[in-house]
Amino acid sequence: MSYTLNERVEGEFDDVVAETVDALEAEGFGVLCDVDVRETLTEKLGEEFRNYRILGACNPGLAHEGLEAEIELGALLPCNVVVYEDDGDVVVSAVDPVQLLDVVDDPAVDPIGEDARERFERALAGL
Amino acid sequence: MSYTLNERVEGEFDDVVAETVDALEAEGFGVLCDVDVRETLTEKLGEEFRNYRILGACNPGLAHEGLEAEIELGALLPCNVVVYEDDGDVVVSAVDPVQLLDVVDDPAVDPIGEDARERFERALAGL
Repeated sequence: MSYTLNERVEGEFDDVVAETVDALEAEGFGVLCDVDVRETLTEKLGEEFRNYRILGACNPGLAHEGLEAEIELGALLPCNVVVYEDDGDVVVSAVDPVQLLDVVDDPAVDPIGEDARERFERALAGL
Repeated sequence: MSYTLNERVEGEFDDVVAETVDALEAEGFGVLCDVDVRETLTEKLGEEFRNYRILGACNPGLAHEGLEAEIELGALLPCNVVVYEDDGDVVVSAVDPVQLLDVVDDPAVDPIGEDARERFERALAGL
């Protein structure tokens, strides 16, 4: 089973990043981290790379519930949504929170993963 | 099996955060994200929470290798190291990269996870 939920869209890379941030916010996720992978690899390694952003998305209510159940859960948070160029399109790919939280093996966090997955599915479907 | 590598240390919270960042840098990880969970939960939900930071640690060489093998891998990067207060001590807890990359189910990324785990183990042991 794939560990990501994907949507392939047409459009300019930067526009798709902005639309993704808006779609996540509409589902209650704030973007707490924003890593520009291309810039980082150029700066640190002198390597060229395609446009690639990692957006760390956090729904504060779900995060709080998860951390109350499992204090180590922050090691898996926020949930990432990556946006990258691929063959002239842009792919938006969210980590599947259900697959990710499967690593924890604690039934208390399963409903949180399912809730987050539904939100990501709706956010991606609207792009 | 636990999904984190842990070290419990004595000291002031902010000092331990700074020492953790230094220890990660010594192992080739830059901290690309720094989420103050307590501040976020207070601001967004009005909830009180213990001191808790999520440091997103990236080793550019390993990240590049991983992304070349598996373009979606950014959904799991950077690898988080959390620092939180617990019973008067401070716990530093790194996601176990081997467990995390197990989600990917691609043998090409297994050595990258093992390399990252060894680096995290050395960084934590020095705290």
